[in-house]
Amino acid sequence: MKEQIELANGKLGILIPGLGAVATTMIAGVEAVKKGLAHPVGSLTQTGNIRLGKRTENRFPKIKDFVPLADLNDIVFGGWDVYEDNVYEAAVNAKVLELGLLQPIKGELEKIKPMKAVFDKAYIKNLDGKNIKSETNKYDLALAVMKDIENFQKVNGCSRMVMVWCGSTEKYIEETDVHKDIYSFEAGLRDNDPMISPSMIYAYAAIKKGVPFANGAPNLTCDIPALVSLSKEMGVPIGGKDFKTGQTLMKTILAPGLHARALGIRGWFSTNILGNRDGWVLDDPDNFRTKEVSKLGVLEDILRPDANPELYGELYHKIRINYYPPHGDNKESWDNIDIFGWLGYPMQIKINFLCRDSILAAPIVLDLALFFDLAKRANMSGIQEWLSFYFKSPQTAEGLRPEHDIFKQLIKLQNTLRHMMGEDLITHLGLDYYQDLVEAL
Amino acid sequence: MKEQIELANGKLGILIPGLGAVATTMIAGVEAVKKGLAHPVGSLTQTGNIRLGKRTENRFPKIKDFVPLADLNDIVFGGWDVYEDNVYEAAVNAKVLELGLLQPIKGELEKIKPMKAVFDKAYIKNLDGKNIKSETNKYDLALAVMKDIENFQKVNGCSRMVMVWCGSTEKYIEETDVHKDIYSFEAGLRDNDPMISPSMIYAYAAIKKGVPFANGAPNLTCDIPALVSLSKEMGVPIGGKDFKTGQTLMKTILAPGLHARALGIRGWFSTNILGNRDGWVLDDPDNFRTKEVSKLGVLEDILRPDANPELYGELYHKIRINYYPPHGDNKESWDNIDIFGWLGYPMQIKINFLCRDSILAAPIVLDLALFFDLAKRANMSGIQEWLSFYFKSPQTAEGLRPEHDIFKQLIKLQNTLRHMMGEDLITHLGLDYYQDLVEAL
Amino acid sequence: MKEQIELANGKLGILIPGLGAVATTMIAGVEAVKKGLAHPVGSLTQTGNIRLGKRTENRFPKIKDFVPLADLNDIVFGGWDVYEDNVYEAAVNAKVLELGLLQPIKGELEKIKPMKAVFDKAYIKNLDGKNIKSETNKYDLALAVMKDIENFQKVNGCSRMVMVWCGSTEKYIEETDVHKDIYSFEAGLRDNDPMISPSMIYAYAAIKKGVPFANGAPNLTCDIPALVSLSKEMGVPIGGKDFKTGQTLMKTILAPGLHARALGIRGWFSTNILGNRDGWVLDDPDNFRTKEVSKLGVLEDILRPDANPELYGELYHKIRINYYPPHGDNKESWDNIDIFGWLGYPMQIKINFLCRDSILAAPIVLDLALFFDLAKRANMSGIQEWLSFYFKSPQTAEGLRPEHDIFKQLIKLQNTLRHMMGEDLITHLGLDYYQDLVEAL
Amino acid sequence: MKEQIELANGKLGILIPGLGAVATTMIAGVEAVKKGLAHPVGSLTQTGNIRLGKRTENRFPKIKDFVPLADLNDIVFGGWDVYEDNVYEAAVNAKVLELGLLQPIKGELEKIKPMKAVFDKAYIKNLDGKNIKSETNKYDLALAVMKDIENFQKVNGCSRMVMVWCGSTEKYIEETDVHKDIYSFEAGLRDNDPMISPSMIYAYAAIKKGVPFANGAPNLTCDIPALVSLSKEMGVPIGGKDFKTGQTLMKTILAPGLHARALGIRGWFSTNILGNRDGWVLDDPDNFRTKEVSKLGVLEDILRPDANPELYGELYHKIRINYYPPHGDNKESWDNIDIFGWLGYPMQIKINFLCRDSILAAPIVLDLALFFDLAKRANMSGIQEWLSFYFKSPQTAEGLRPEHDIFKQLIKLQNTLRHMMGEDLITHLGLDYYQDLVEAL
Ligand SMILES: NC(=O)c1ccc[n+]([C@@H]2O[C@H](COP(=O)([O-])OP(=O)(O)OC[C@H]3O[C@@H](n4cnc5c(N)ncnc54)[C@H](O)[C@@H]3O)[C@@H](O)[C@H]2O)c1
Ligand SMILES: NC(=O)c1ccc[n+]([C@@H]2O[C@H](COP(=O)([O-])OP(=O)(O)OC[C@H]3O[C@@H](n4cnc5c(N)ncnc54)[C@H](O)[C@@H]3O)[C@@H](O)[C@H]2O)c1
Ligand SMILES: NC(=O)c1ccc[n+]([C@@H]2O[C@H](COP(=O)([O-])OP(=O)(O)OC[C@H]3O[C@@H](n4cnc5c(N)ncnc54)[C@H](O)[C@@H]3O)[C@@H](O)[C@H]2O)c1
Ligand SMILES: NC(=O)c1ccc[n+]([C@@H]2O[C@H](COP(=O)([O-])OP(=O)(O)OC[C@H]3O[C@@H](n4cnc5c(N)ncnc54)[C@H](O)[C@@H]3O)[C@@H](O)[C@H]2O)c1
Ligand code: NA
Ligand code: NA
Repeated sequence: MKEQIELANGKLGILIPGLGAVATTMIAGVEAVKKGLAHPVGSLTQTGNIRLGKRTENRFPKIKDFVPLADLNDIVFGGWDVYEDNVYEAAVNAKVLELGLLQPIKGELEKIKPMKAVFDKAYIKNLDGKNIKSETNKYDLALAVMKDIENFQKVNGCSRMVMVWCGSTEKYIEETDVHKDIYSFEAGLRDNDPMISPSMIYAYAAIKKGVPFANGAPNLTCDIPALVSLSKEMGVPIGGKDFKTGQTLMKTILAPGLHARALGIRGWFSTNILGNRDGWVLDDPDNFRTKEVSKLGVLEDILRPDANPELYGELYHKIRINYYPPHGDNKESWDNIDIFGWLGYPMQIKINFLCRDSILAAPIVLDLALFFDLAKRANMSGIQEWLSFYFKSPQTAEGLRPEHDIFKQLIKLQNTLRHMMGEDLITHLGLDYYQDLVEAL
Repeated sequence: MKEQIELANGKLGILIPGLGAVATTMIAGVEAVKKGLAHPVGSLTQTGNIRLGKRTENRFPKIKDFVPLADLNDIVFGGWDVYEDNVYEAAVNAKVLELGLLQPIKGELEKIKPMKAVFDKAYIKNLDGKNIKSETNKYDLALAVMKDIENFQKVNGCSRMVMVWCGSTEKYIEETDVHKDIYSFEAGLRDNDPMISPSMIYAYAAIKKGVPFANGAPNLTCDIPALVSLSKEMGVPIGGKDFKTGQTLMKTILAPGLHARALGIRGWFSTNILGNRDGWVLDDPDNFRTKEVSKLGVLEDILRPDANPELYGELYHKIRINYYPPHGDNKESWDNIDIFGWLGYPMQIKINFLCRDSILAAPIVLDLALFFDLAKRANMSGIQEWLSFYFKSPQTAEGLRPEHDIFKQLIKLQNTLRHMMGEDLITHLGLDYYQDLVEAL
Repeated sequence: MKEQIELANGKLGILIPGLGAVATTMIAGVEAVKKGLAHPVGSLTQTGNIRLGKRTENRFPKIKDFVPLADLNDIVFGGWDVYEDNVYEAAVNAKVLELGLLQPIKGELEKIKPMKAVFDKAYIKNLDGKNIKSETNKYDLALAVMKDIENFQKVNGCSRMVMVWCGSTEKYIEETDVHKDIYSFEAGLRDNDPMISPSMIYAYAAIKKGVPFANGAPNLTCDIPALVSLSKEMGVPIGGKDFKTGQTLMKTILAPGLHARALGIRGWFSTNILGNRDGWVLDDPDNFRTKEVSKLGVLEDILRPDANPELYGELYHKIRINYYPPHGDNKESWDNIDIFGWLGYPMQIKINFLCRDSILAAPIVLDLALFFDLAKRANMSGIQEWLSFYFKSPQTAEGLRPEHDIFKQLIKLQNTLRHMMGEDLITHLGLDYYQDLVEAL
Repeated sequence: MKEQIELANGKLGILIPGLGAVATTMIAGVEAVKKGLAHPVGSLTQTGNIRLGKRTENRFPKIKDFVPLADLNDIVFGGWDVYEDNVYEAAVNAKVLELGLLQPIKGELEKIKPMKAVFDKAYIKNLDGKNIKSETNKYDLALAVMKDIENFQKVNGCSRMVMVWCGSTEKYIEETDVHKDIYSFEAGLRDNDPMISPSMIYAYAAIKKGVPFANGAPNLTCDIPALVSLSKEMGVPIGGKDFKTGQTLMKTILAPGLHARALGIRGWFSTNILGNRDGWVLDDPDNFRTKEVSKLGVLEDILRPDANPELYGELYHKIRINYYPPHGDNKESWDNIDIFGWLGYPMQIKINFLCRDSILAAPIVLDLALFFDLAKRANMSGIQEWLSFYFKSPQTAEGLRPEHDIFKQLIKLQNTLRHMMGEDLITHLGLDYYQDLVEAL
């Protein structure tokens, strides 16, 4: 497959609806890394290795030396937000990064000013910025975003672009007729259908312009039939949703482990406290519902209660998110897991994660941008299931259940890269077959 | 390979040096399970499934229906201990299982009385039982154990036997000349060499009698060249060491997850409190040292600081075990993990595991006994690396580093079973190759 | 004052609306203690001591040897519930105490059968028992309860009685006109005023019959002007509300300590998981509101943000209760406290309390019953502020702020006992005055 | 007593052996507070209030407006250390305070340079500074310290001085003959008796010069008969030892609360991780022993197992301190408390304190300095028990048991202040006596 991948020549524009805590932490980080001021910890594209060939070959290159990724120095950032703050101001307000780190890159960050947003208060009650497009028809709004994309490309001389939604979580809605196919969707845009959210408008505009689109929030966006089929038609990679960080990350690490050992689980209680703008938006029950649904799915897929009813048939899973201003962006989670072992004897595991939400999410945004750009150049279109590794609620082809086990997700990601580059996944079927298989991981 | 496996006909004798908390919990559990009083949670041989063939084949049999394992009803238990308590009394003293559960199987348990032990106070200061063999020469002691094995087989009409060391942790020693080959070892036995521990004497006797031997404690036992080569010569499977439970189990689940996401780790502090006899033995610094060495290795293998110096180069790993009587067998662990992410920002994960040590260890003893017996019938001899899944400190062929990642260990175990039964591991090399690979896991 | 206290001759009837987890744990415990099967840990009346006189006098009697309390052998239990289960059945269902403990007292417990309850679904949606009085007018219901009280006294030959509300938490309501005085209240009873709750009907009936009344739940009950003035008129001691257990108990211990050291507090997040019937009732937001209000007050009183604005002016206090069936009665709480010290530097305290709700509440019910009976015999009427020690939300005379600091509450309780018995509180005003003061505590 | 207190005119010299983390955090803080850059949180002398008179009088002045304390602007700092770093450098190395805070007071801090220390490697193995007095005889060393004190006073024009030991914890020793009286002690100085530690030499020098001495570390220092009697003779207040911070602070808050409720305690396990120089010194078992003994005493005094054998008779108390570099000065503690309630049912409390050691200790140093100066001016000499509030292991008159309950300690402190100023402690003995008593607290 190798020969089919276009090289990463020219500039890559990373376009971001929602220049809040996550986006600004990512952008500031990339600028700091470019200046040698900090290390891109947590990013596989920047720091990860991949094992190739047989155990004895001892080949273990950096991922970025193995597949043709855009160089950090070729990236240009742009975005939209309902607030007018430039990226420096927004980063300061987000209180994620220290001033000492932001100071030396102030110039770069100040230059990035948000374009006017497509916004609808019906989807996010707790925000009230003024930097909003004036069009009142949804189709016109989509056209305006396409215009923004074109301008951005021209002004910045980009050879390629990707879009990653880092906007606030929109309220919970379910798929309806307007989302069924591209005809009903475009009609809905023209009729201002209330079931078309702002995030869908950005996604539509991106796909129409041939720009890959990834959704970092849990809201219904590109995971509707209309946009899935459009993406295939346009040859555009899409995917989502909801960056896998914090508590859910831990869950998809731990649950496969307990399952591996055939330990039973009776209950899993997860609570979170966070005090940033994201937390404030999620304090609204409609918006929390979107997040809750996204977070609840992971255990069922990993544990398969149907196959193991004695172990997981009565699992009670509860998730709470609490707005708690004293913590700011330092989201903290506390989990209580009621497990049972031999003869049904109960045990408990408690996990307290003092995490920094945006610090965990930022490298995901970068990796997704670079991998979606790679996918586009490799002529991959539609849903990119191989990037499930990064999402709480991975979008899959219709009818397929998502894979949540982070270790299987990682194998999938790595094997896709090997496959792209024409590397043998497994070469020997001899006696020590399993050994090689394991070594290939 | 399938045709080579002998069927599990006749009785299997499970012989256990050390009829303490772990052993009696396992034995009582098997009896309770046989009577339908309880469920063998945590045992892969009894409850686990294995995926076969391609995703679409939908084959997902129980492991025990897939490979020919001994039936629980064909098992006979025997063992040695320095105390005279029968298994019922020992189980009551261990305070792991409730009296309500022990009552209905009292008869079966009382029948199992410990044979006189090979014991040496120099290896375990904190014990002083009287049920001890009177021979004073180590070679004679080995012969006496072989005699015990023969008698047991005769009296119980066993067609096969396995031995699993569940004795207390012996003091820390390092390999010396006497362990180098079987000649020096046997000479050492005759000369009463102080570097030959009681557990080695049991292991030697077992291997000489063609009985597979697994070591559940962290002491140096069958992981010496003398016994490794003897096991190959005699066609006997061996392995160890130190059942992977509690805190280390969690570590080998969590560390691969953090590593997958390229998150850095600065420090990992692990402390334990436990109040059972095992804890009392480990309160002696010499014996604790044995356990400490066994527990310390896991992170290095998983994280590979050499390949990721920026992420793991400065990892400070500290482990403490504290004897704390109020908790009895309910070992509790507390871990503080200092991680860092994007741009080096620090975060913390704290895990509090209210565990029951013997409840986690008991199904491991059972699985090991059944899998070692299977290996013997499959003509596998020497170190059984594919059972690393069950050990804190897996024994490997010389020069190979152990695999600690529990997910890779599981793949290894499952693929060995598939291989044994002649199942294709991977069949298609087509476009959706990686999909199949993942599904095969 | 000593001579005024009537002795505790004859039988004391303890009447309990709500024979659920707390009540049955208390009753079963008293029976077990009477049989010498268990120890009344947590009860000051049964195990506490009190220091008397000067340090050098070395007088430190048991409280029950100091003040004339009813003997456990003179107690008779009765009660009402909306379910028909007798106390043995209810105790088994509550799953607080082991069957092994309940077995030997089964006979005593089975004899106690709930009288038909005054119940109103409007106040507790999540219950639907059938053991309910048929009267439809609230005044008639009150008369029916009075009749129950009379019958009980006659049948059991009681010389005195007390009533302790252990019923479920009723929905949140605020004081209105109907609660203002006894005329409007009695009119309301006759008119079936919706603002008169079942618990108020029990309280009214008790007070009218001269029976002391204590409220263990957080609902508005005897803390309305109508019942306060009636209690004074009738010479009946009353008080409440909401037994101080678990998380709030910890809060009123810890907050005074942090305040003593002038440490600042920015946030206090408290979450709970519990899975018993109490939890199920509190899962309804209306009923949770009642509990939340009761729990929120404690910090403000102890920390006095007005007097220490720099330390406590911005304290964010949040409380959550989550219904989580896997835990049953084993309520578990987790607190995160954001404190700050010297120069404003932040620190965190996290408390995880694996508590047993009813085990903590049961001795409180007993102590309250015995102390309210004592108060009656000492001619004390109206609100018994000196028993604030036992309540989350202590009822006070109008205009007075409640005391929440558990150490000040204890001093108050002990000094009231000393005062009742004519003991000097402080005798010397000499140089070592403060020493004596402290010793007297 | 009021008239006897000399006013706080002129400069107060605070002399500190040990200019490490605690001392520099205190000094930097005072300088920052003086410049209005930060708030002296945690200091009672700077922020605390005291209630006076009857409840209705509503008098609640700041402590510093009530008793005549030295003003922060009148303080001059000096000290000794084995390292040559000035206070700015030492504060930077200690990594407690941010550079942003230290910058504006750099000038003030740089001026404070440590005098050459009295040091003895036999008492602290893990240190090896070079800023050490050259005298080899202990008596000569004492004279040299006295000389330092005189010089300091002259150069800085101090009207009064106090000394607070903030040096590292010395190794564990027990009282012997040389400590028995001042004759044997002075002989020991001359003979270089190995049982006379450096800290004792500083204490002796201070007392001889009429300078109050407080010991912030757990080592045996002024708590020997020789120095106690000397202090009385010289009219000098002394006291110690071991600043009460972190885990022990929490213990003396929580234990009185559990005791108040008559809850039983079976076990209390306390572990700590810290990575500063203090932790490094305590990593030596000899020095840890000193700390351990200091920390172990608190529970026994508060719980009085003799008076409550059923509740506290079997309490198992264990304390661990672990050197863990990743945490630096951010000492973290984890406690597991096994309690039991009604009928003996077990519960658990776990406390995780993410504390900053020096942030908690700094205001204690300041308060002690100011209160010891006050005591001197009030003609109080010998052991100042009323300051037990600040110490883990309060020094008491011979034969008296220390008071550890922080709430009783606070009453003692406040009543001493009231007594000093001639305020009535309690005025009314009428019916509402206990009310007044409580209000007076
Ligand atoms: N941080 C994490 O760990 C994490 C993990 C998973 C998902 N997420 C999701 O990522 C998103 C961003 O998180 P954050 O912490 O940066 O939140 P944030 O509140 O700091 O930033 C979101 C920004 O989006 C802007 N916005 C909202 N609607 C918009 C619109 N229609 N057009 C343009 N801008 C819009 C807001 O004004 C805000 O500035 C959220 O949806 C969050 O749920 C975050
Ligand atoms: N429980 C776990 O989770 C776990 C995990 C890993 C390893 N282990 C190891 O398993 C072993 C057993 O643990 P346990 O909790 O049952 O301990 P235990 O103390 O309850 O039982 C050990 C028994 O071995 C006996 N023994 C000691 N030396 C012997 C000898 N030479 N010959 C015969 N008997 C001997 C002792 O008398 C004792 O009865 C220990 O070494 C322990 O470290 C346990
Ligand atoms: N357990 C604790 O630690 C604790 C602490 C503080 C307060 N409380 C309060 O004590 C009360 C009892 O708690 P619990 O755990 O025993 O709850 P529970 O649900 O087990 O018992 C309450 C009982 O009251 C009965 N009931 C409800 N309404 C009634 C009515 N009108 N008349 C008669 N019976 C009625 C219910 O049927 C139930 O059996 C609750 O209000 C709870 O909030 C408990
Ligand atoms: N920080 C706390 O919460 C706390 C609480 C209780 C007690 N303490 C005690 O306070 C003391 C200081 O703690 P720290 O964190 O500042 O420690 P630190 O190690 O940072 O500072 C101690 C300083 O004392 C110096 N020193 C040692 N021996 C000396 C001597 N003979 N003469 C002069 N200087 C000497 C060392 O060189 C070092 O600079 C320690 O004994 C500690 O145990 C601290
Ligand atoms: Na919660
Ligand atoms: Na420890």
